[in-house]
Amino acid sequence: MTQLFPEWLEAKPMIEAVKVELTPPRLGDNIADLDRLTRALAAQGFAPVLVDPGQLGRLAAAIRRLGYRATAILGFVRLGWELLDVVPIDAGPPLLGCALDLGTTSLAFYLVDLQTARVIAQTSVKNPQIPYGEDILTRIIYARSPENLEHLRHLLLDTIRAALSRLVQDLGADGSAIHVLTVAGNTTMSHFFLGLDPATICKEPYIPVANTFPILPATLLDLGIHPRAPVYVFPNVGSYFGGDLIAGILATGMRRRDELSLLVDVGTNAEVVLGNRDWLIACAGAAGPALEGGVVERGMMAAPGAIDRVRIDPETDQLSYTVLGGGKPVGICGSGLIDLLAQMFLAGLLTIQGKINTDLACPRIRHTEDGPAFVVAFGEETADGQDLLVPQIDIGILLKSKAAMYTILNVICNKVGVSLKDLAHFYVAGAFGNHIDPEMAITIGMLPDLPLSTFEGLGNTAGRGAAMLLLDRGLFEDIDSVCRQITYVELNVNMELMNEFRGATFIPHTDPRLFPSVGIPEKAMGKGVGHAGQAPSIG
Amino acid sequence: MTQLFPEWLEAKPMIEAVKVELTPPRLGDNIADLDRLTRALAAQGFAPVLVDPGQLGRLAAAIRRLGYRATAILGFVRLGWELLDVVPIDAGPPLLGCALDLGTTSLAFYLVDLQTARVIAQTSVKNPQIPYGEDILTRIIYARSPENLEHLRHLLLDTIRAALSRLVQDLGADGSAIHVLTVAGNTTMSHFFLGLDPATICKEPYIPVANTFPILPATLLDLGIHPRAPVYVFPNVGSYFGGDLIAGILATGMRRRDELSLLVDVGTNAEVVLGNRDWLIACAGAAGPALEGGVVERGMMAAPGAIDRVRIDPETDQLSYTVLGGGKPVGICGSGLIDLLAQMFLAGLLTIQGKINTDLACPRIRHTEDGPAFVVAFGEETADGQDLLVPQIDIGILLKSKAAMYTILNVICNKVGVSLKDLAHFYVAGAFGNHIDPEMAITIGMLPDLPLSTFEGLGNTAGRGAAMLLLDRGLFEDIDSVCRQITYVELNVNMELMNEFRGATFIPHTDPRLFPSVGIPEKAMGKGVGHAGQAPSIG
Repeated sequence: MTQLFPEWLEAKPMIEAVKVELTPPRLGDNIADLDRLTRALAAQGFAPVLVDPGQLGRLAAAIRRLGYRATAILGFVRLGWELLDVVPIDAGPPLLGCALDLGTTSLAFYLVDLQTARVIAQTSVKNPQIPYGEDILTRIIYARSPENLEHLRHLLLDTIRAALSRLVQDLGADGSAIHVLTVAGNTTMSHFFLGLDPATICKEPYIPVANTFPILPATLLDLGIHPRAPVYVFPNVGSYFGGDLIAGILATGMRRRDELSLLVDVGTNAEVVLGNRDWLIACAGAAGPALEGGVVERGMMAAPGAIDRVRIDPETDQLSYTVLGGGKPVGICGSGLIDLLAQMFLAGLLTIQGKINTDLACPRIRHTEDGPAFVVAFGEETADGQDLLVPQIDIGILLKSKAAMYTILNVICNKVGVSLKDLAHFYVAGAFGNHIDPEMAITIGMLPDLPLSTFEGLGNTAGRGAAMLLLDRGLFEDIDSVCRQITYVELNVNMELMNEFRGATFIPHTDPRLFPSVGIPEKAMGKGVGHAGQAPSIG
Repeated sequence: MTQLFPEWLEAKPMIEAVKVELTPPRLGDNIADLDRLTRALAAQGFAPVLVDPGQLGRLAAAIRRLGYRATAILGFVRLGWELLDVVPIDAGPPLLGCALDLGTTSLAFYLVDLQTARVIAQTSVKNPQIPYGEDILTRIIYARSPENLEHLRHLLLDTIRAALSRLVQDLGADGSAIHVLTVAGNTTMSHFFLGLDPATICKEPYIPVANTFPILPATLLDLGIHPRAPVYVFPNVGSYFGGDLIAGILATGMRRRDELSLLVDVGTNAEVVLGNRDWLIACAGAAGPALEGGVVERGMMAAPGAIDRVRIDPETDQLSYTVLGGGKPVGICGSGLIDLLAQMFLAGLLTIQGKINTDLACPRIRHTEDGPAFVVAFGEETADGQDLLVPQIDIGILLKSKAAMYTILNVICNKVGVSLKDLAHFYVAGAFGNHIDPEMAITIGMLPDLPLSTFEGLGNTAGRGAAMLLLDRGLFEDIDSVCRQITYVELNVNMELMNEFRGATFIPHTDPRLFPSVGIPEKAMGKGVGHAGQAPSIG
C-alpha cells in the first residue's frame, strides 16, 4: 500500500484538529467554557459538536487550563463532530487513524497519519478464531452459546488490541494517538467484532442482526486507543455481501466514474461487483480456493517459497520460474499456477480441453497411479528434495475455478446487458490480484481478453477502502449510496450458469472469438476437438 | 398542576410508541432485522433512528421473537430518535415521563402519562444537600474537593432515585415505565446533577462549565428508570440564569405570542423575564426572601398553619384571616404579609411611608422595646399561645422587598422602552404566585396597577415547563431560541436603581399616578408627607 490513495480523494479526514483562540470570559461575556468552544467551532464550520456526558468536566477544565487557546480534536460521527480532546494549541498529539481489514483468515492493520495522508505502518496477524473454525460457518456454529460468542469476540478484541499496541510501540507512539478506527469485515466477522449473534446469517433467509452499525467509542471495546476514538464498522448489504466489499468498492473509485468498472475479489468465493456512478450489481460464486492456491496439492498462498512466475520456452520446453523471496521453491501460488497452465498451453503441453498432452515426449510429464502429472520443479531444485508435481486432477480443479470465474463475469454482464468488452477498468483484489499476470490469466481464459492496461491489482481493497475513509469522510456518502443502490444477485440458484460454465472450462474457451489475442498452438488441439472454431459456441 | 398544560401545546411527546408490521425476511428480501425496523420507522417519519451499540443484539432479537409485528418505543434525542425498546404490538408498557424541578431547597417531581397528557402523580422532597449548605454558595464551597462534589451528587441522585421509585410504586408501576426525564434546575444544581464542578460559577466572571448539556441515557445516572431513557437537563444562559427559568419561560407561553408578557419568579432573588415572540430580556435582583416569608420574625412558607389571607374592616379595625389547612395559625406567609400591609394601609394603620400609625388608638398596635409592632393574631388564637406580631422592622424589610420588586419591573421595562401598562400578561411563579392576591399586591405598590385579569399565578413554572417539554418536543426549538435571544441584564451594577427604589418604598409609591386604582385613605398620610400628589415624582 505504498501508492495507496487515489488523487481524487479529498483531504477531509475523519479527525480534525481545529485551532481556536477564544476570548477569555469576562463580565458581560460570560458564556460557559464548553459553549464558548463549540461556538467558535461552529464559526469554523464544525457543528453540531457533541460531547460525551462523562467528558464535560474534563474538557471544560482543559479549555480553562490552556488559557482559552487550544486545539480541539474533533471526530466525525456523521450526525456531528464529537469533541475528543482539547490539547495545547501548538503541540497537539500525532493524529493517527487505523484501518482494519477484519478477515476470516487474517486481520490486516494500516496505520495512517491523518495529517500527511500516508500509511506509516502496517501489519497482519492471523485471525485468532481460526482454532474454532477455519471457515466462518464452523465458527457461527461454535458461537451458538452466548459464552462461546463472547469468547470468540474476546479472542478477536484481544488480538486487535495487542496488534495495535505493537504497531504504535514500534513507532514510539502511544495508543491514544490513534483517534479513529475503521473496520471492514465480512458480515459475520463484523458481527463477532460487535458481539452480535451471527446465528441467523447462515440460516435461510440469511439475515444479519444489522446491516448498518452505530459508530461507537473505542472505550466500549477496550482497544487501548484513544478512549473516545470513533470506531466505524462498514455496513453490509446482506449476509454474503459484507463491509469488506463495500470498502473494496470505495477503493476502486468506480462509484466516482461514468465508465464501467468491475471488481473481482477472489477469496473463498469470487465476489464480483460491476457498475459505475449510476448503478452497481454484485454477485458471488464458488471460484476461489484453487485460485488462491488453497486446494491443489502443492498449492500455497503467495508467500516466501512460492513459485509465482513460470515461463516455458515453446521450442525447447525449457521451464523457468521465480520464487517469492528467492531460495528453493516450497510450493506454487495462484499466480504461478495460472502462469503454469498458460505456459503449458502455449507450449502445447496442455490441450484446449485442459488435459496434459501425454502424446508428447516431455520429461516433465509423469504418469502416476492417479493419472498424469506435470513436474514444475525437480527434486534437486526444491526445498524438500521432492519433485514439485501438479497432477491432472489439480489442473482440472483449477480449470473449473477459472471457468467459474469467467462464467460469473459473463453472467453478471449479461444481467445488465453490457459486454465484458465495455469494461474500462478491471480491478483484481487481494494478494492474488497483486501477483497475477493478466496476460497469462487471459491466455487460460480466466480473465476476459481486454487491453492489459485495463487490469489493475489493488491488493487489500477492504483495507484500502477503510483507510481511504479515514482520510475522506465524504466517502460516507458513497457508502450510503452503494448500500442503497447495489443489487445483489444470487448465482447459486441460477441455471444459465451451467451452460456458460461448460464452455469456459476449455482453454481459453470453446469460443476462441472471445479471446482473439490468444494464439492457440496446433499441438494443444487435443484428440477430442478438431478445430476450436468448430466447438459449439455459446451466445 | 391540575389544569397544567396550555391548549397550544402540540401532542408531540418526547417518547413515541410506533406500531410496525414488518414483512418477515425471506430469500430476495433479506434486509437485516434492525434495518428492516428502521426502514419502516423512517417511512413513518422517524429518522434517523439511533441504536445504542450495546442494545443492537437485544433489540434485533426482540423483533424476531415478536414475529416482526411490534411496537417500537422511540425517544427523541434531538439529533434523531433513539430506539429504546421493541415491545409487543398490542400490549406496550405504560409510557410515563417525569419532569423534575431541581431546586436548591426542594426537588419537585411530576409524573406525566405521555399518552393522556396528564400529570398522574407528583411529589416534592427536600434537597438532600441542604445539610451541606442552605444556600447554594455554601454548597459550592463545600464541593471544592472532588470527593465532596461526588458526595453531593450522590446524595442528590440517591434522593431522586428513591423519590421516583416511590412515585411509581404508589401507582403499582415499574420504574422502567418512566421513559424520559426532563430536569429544570438552576445552573449550580444542574452542575451537581451532572457531576460538573460548579467552582467557577461563583467566581468572577461567573462562568459555568457548560450552558448546554448533552442528552444522556438514564443508565449513566442509575436512576432506576428505563435504562435508555433520555435525560434532558435544561440549558442555562449563565451562572445566574438557569434552566429552571428557561423552563419557566416555556411554561408561560410568552415565546408564542405577539403581546408583551412578564414573568416574575420570587425565590432567593426576584427573577424577571420580559418579552414576546421576538425578544426577551431578563434580570434578577435581591427582592425575594421577605416576600417568601423567610425573613420576618413570624414569617413562613405557604404551608399548613400559615395565615395566607388578611382582611381589616377600615371602619371598625376588625381583623379577619384564613389559615392554610385550617386550625390555629403558626405564622404568616408571603401572601398573608402582603394582605396585611395592604389592609393596614387601607385602614390607615400604616402610613404611606410604611410606618405603623401610632397616632391611632388601636388595640393591635403594640409598643415593644424594638419599636412599634402589629398584632395579627392574639395569643388565644394562635397555635403556641403567643401573640403573632409583625414588628415595624419587619414591615420595613417587606417594603424594601416590594420596592425592589417594583423597581426591577420598572427598570427592565425602561431598558427596552416599554411601559408596565403595555403588559398583556403578568405571570407570577412559585407557591407565592399561587397565593398572592394581586389586588393587595397592587395596593402596596409591589405589582403594577394593571387589570386584575392580567395576573396569573403559574405555580412551579420550572416543573411545568419541564413537563410541557415531555409532551411537546417542538418546545426544543423554543428553548434554543430563548437561549439565543435572551438578554440578561445585571442589575446589581446599575445605579439608576437607587432612584427608582426610593420612590417605590412608599405605599403604593411616591407617585400615586402610577397606581390610579389605589384609593389612598386620608389617615395613611403620615406626618412626613403632606399630600401624596406633592411627593417628588420620578420620570
